[in-house]
Amino acid sequence: MARVSQEHLDARRRQILDGAALCFARNGFHATSMQDVLKEVDLSAGAVYRYFRGKDELIQAIVTEVLDDVRAAFEAAGKEAPLPPPYELVGMVVRRMFAGRPGLQVDGESYFPRLMVQVWTETLRNEGLSVVLREGYAKVRGVWVGIVQEYQAAGAMRADVDPEDVARTMIAAVQGFAAQQALFGELPVENLQSGLRGLMSMGEVS
Amino acid sequence: MARVSQEHLDARRRQILDGAALCFARNGFHATSMQDVLKEVDLSAGAVYRYFRGKDELIQAIVTEVLDDVRAAFEAAGKEAPLPPPYELVGMVVRRMFAGRPGLQVDGESYFPRLMVQVWTETLRNEGLSVVLREGYAKVRGVWVGIVQEYQAAGAMRADVDPEDVARTMIAAVQGFAAQQALFGELPVENLQSGLRGLMSMGEVS
Repeated sequence: MARVSQEHLDARRRQILDGAALCFARNGFHATSMQDVLKEVDLSAGAVYRYFRGKDELIQAIVTEVLDDVRAAFEAAGKEAPLPPPYELVGMVVRRMFAGRPGLQVDGESYFPRLMVQVWTETLRNEGLSVVLREGYAKVRGVWVGIVQEYQAAGAMRADVDPEDVARTMIAAVQGFAAQQALFGELPVENLQSGLRGLMSMGEVS
Repeated sequence: MARVSQEHLDARRRQILDGAALCFARNGFHATSMQDVLKEVDLSAGAVYRYFRGKDELIQAIVTEVLDDVRAAFEAAGKEAPLPPPYELVGMVVRRMFAGRPGLQVDGESYFPRLMVQVWTETLRNEGLSVVLREGYAKVRGVWVGIVQEYQAAGAMRADVDPEDVARTMIAAVQGFAAQQALFGELPVENLQSGLRGLMSMGEVS
């Protein structure tokens, strides 16, 4: 067998992952067959099975990658200094999440929100993936709890609410916005940002 | 054939819908077979097919019902007078959405958030259901745009943000919270409410 460079192996692996991500974003994990993936990436079964021993291994790789991308986006935003207000942070997360692989599109729109919703559904029936999701979420929540504590220490946010609750709520806004993108089509993140600014402007309510 | 009362027919239909909702919430629409549903409701195929001609019709009925429940919850909250602040409204929506059929549980928790996430995924691959979802969402958004306009008219919210953006963001918070419930287990809605109060307290940011 001819010797193949690591670069070539990596590129081929990436090609398979991208094709599979498109199939899964389009049709979901359950309704996508390995045949669909082979057709999408235009490779033989032998070529693909060299990298992934089957659909389960491919699903595992894709779900892990999506969850890593999401976590990285939340964590990167959390490192901004000086700390921006929540609506800026949330905008950074969404932009980074969706910027990943701009070439991957379903019906002319980013594959990412659709794939994210598919990943949620898949973790509901897969205990192993559910653990990966919970661990990633716990890490993200930890980082954002720290952010909220900074707001409170700076006197920018009332101190009588649990930082954990605010962290959860900011994450929920991102998740809900991603769901809306998947379900109703692409929407500039500025809409979410302006919506948050509206809510923030209401001030303290007892 | 013996005459059967309308009440009996309705109760039987309800029994089938509830059993199917549990199956779909547990395993998703695609991975659930009619056999699974028959087993769950403990009825013969003949008894079930009298009400639903097949899995597609059952999916259609369940998805429509879930979307109706969600829409009704948003619309009911929108009719509260005097108008409560956003964190109260959001709490009302979530409580009403999840209060529907308390007996239906998956792993000891309400079936509703799980089924809601499954419905999202299903609409991604079903154009007919996607239209139902979009129409329901447009109605809800319309009602909530009116609410935001009331806040602004009363001077409770900055007037330079698009009410549509704020409506979307409040709905996103509910959707994201529902996703978290499905993915990470039940959580008191008070956590979301307290998180929103924290964000609201930050005041106007230019």
